[in-house]
Amino acid sequence: MNLNVEKILIIGLGMIGSSIALASKSKGIKVFGFDKSNSSMKKALEKNIIDSKVESIEDINSKDFVKKVDLLIVAVPPKQTLDVLNDLKDIWNTDVTITDTSSVKNHIKLNDASNIVLSHPIAGSDRSGISAANGDLFKNKKNVLCDPFNSKKGHFEKVDNFWKNALQMRTSLMSVTEHDLVFAMTSHLPHLVSYALIDSIRLSNHDVDDNAGGGLKEFLRLSGSNSEMWRDIFILNRVDLIKALAGMQVSLNNLLELITETKQIPDVFSHLELLNKELDEIKSFKEDKF
Amino acid sequence: MNLNVEKILIIGLGMIGSSIALASKSKGIKVFGFDKSNSSMKKALEKNIIDSKVESIEDINSKDFVKKVDLLIVAVPPKQTLDVLNDLKDIWNTDVTITDTSSVKNHIKLNDASNIVLSHPIAGSDRSGISAANGDLFKNKKNVLCDPFNSKKGHFEKVDNFWKNALQMRTSLMSVTEHDLVFAMTSHLPHLVSYALIDSIRLSNHDVDDNAGGGLKEFLRLSGSNSEMWRDIFILNRVDLIKALAGMQVSLNNLLELITETKQIPDVFSHLELLNKELDEIKSFKEDKF
Repeated sequence: MNLNVEKILIIGLGMIGSSIALASKSKGIKVFGFDKSNSSMKKALEKNIIDSKVESIEDINSKDFVKKVDLLIVAVPPKQTLDVLNDLKDIWNTDVTITDTSSVKNHIKLNDASNIVLSHPIAGSDRSGISAANGDLFKNKKNVLCDPFNSKKGHFEKVDNFWKNALQMRTSLMSVTEHDLVFAMTSHLPHLVSYALIDSIRLSNHDVDDNAGGGLKEFLRLSGSNSEMWRDIFILNRVDLIKALAGMQVSLNNLLELITETKQIPDVFSHLELLNKELDEIKSFKEDKF
Repeated sequence: MNLNVEKILIIGLGMIGSSIALASKSKGIKVFGFDKSNSSMKKALEKNIIDSKVESIEDINSKDFVKKVDLLIVAVPPKQTLDVLNDLKDIWNTDVTITDTSSVKNHIKLNDASNIVLSHPIAGSDRSGISAANGDLFKNKKNVLCDPFNSKKGHFEKVDNFWKNALQMRTSLMSVTEHDLVFAMTSHLPHLVSYALIDSIRLSNHDVDDNAGGGLKEFLRLSGSNSEMWRDIFILNRVDLIKALAGMQVSLNNLLELITETKQIPDVFSHLELLNKELDEIKSFKEDKF
């Protein structure tokens, strides 16, 4: 382990920001924190989640302050990420490295910000807020980096090294376009579908009681996270979300046509056999791939 | 604990049947087993999952044999459940109690079978077969009973008592109609959607690599169980499955119209606010209900 940051500032002390803070402190990194909620900052200090607080975004957005830290992490919901990065215009292209934690990237359009590298640390929880801080949340998990602003030499390495060595994550590099489509398929659509399924049970007249053992359980976890964050994700990534949904509908219709025996198939096959083959192929793909 | 069965026979020694066998043996119940696969029966004996084997369905279907056991559990895939129950016609209306483990019930239509009570022990696993036997699989889980054949006094109580005291499960009673619709919503549709989602990723040209941490993981578990069992469930419960899907599509379309700002709403509201409110309401429902 070879840490290349000594002091960091985390903007946003929710579940993600405060979990990063805890993990960083455990590695001996000095952690400054800022949150627009004074009570969150107070709690973070009391619980020793951060070492020091910063009073305002204006204080951060000064060339004097940023000399004090090596890395600045913006850990706010996806939509606010762009706003906060824009608020920090005075420290773009300085020596401090800036990164984020947003699960959507296409809306983060900045001109001439060569010290900004984007990060997406992947960890799910149905809890939110500082009380859900967990220093092990990201351990051994994946972090996908994007470098859409062609960061100057050193910044990408600093961010990559931080996630690997301070947070013990695996990292990979993706384009913003690929990132947003892949996560529409693997994360945003599964969440949207889970919300829809739970909503349909809510609207039905059937008391599902405690009969949630056979599959619903998994959907329940996904439909319970921070609503503001998921609203942002669904809206900001709606184009890719709808592409992913279109793909899922094709597969769903294929299965439904086999189930209802309405698919046009050659006489030598039976719907039953084809459905079994299809389910087996999906299962094998899953086992080979994941 | 007051066990009212001493000897049982389990037909079908897959993951479900052999898990029931292990749990029963741990309570001192003598377990006979039958499986159409000789190698499964051999394995079950070798691994001490059952105490004795029975050679054939014909041997079971005799008034002599059934005097040896108190309860007979048919633990085969849903479609075969009906076939096996029909094969046992000679022992309908005898003193032995017969039950099953099928997750779909509407196809089990029998006339004059007053010793048959239906059971649905609810536990999920993405493993199958005798090697996945787990004596704790059903502990503290739910078992939904149906009594469509108006079983004669004593049979229902015996089945109910067995699941509660030998397997340590909670039980409840439902009509077949209600059972199949509730499980279409809570289990069959979640599984179908999971298969469709994984299939759409398989068919896409995008390498999702190891980026499955943010939601896909839950879907992966659901799309990996025994294909034959799920083929049967989807086909046998297709009417309720499509009702459940129709409900989910209504909810999905509502969310999509808010996300894409195409929903007709009064001027005083914004799509953003309404989407947030909707997600919050789903979250609250989930938290209150489950």
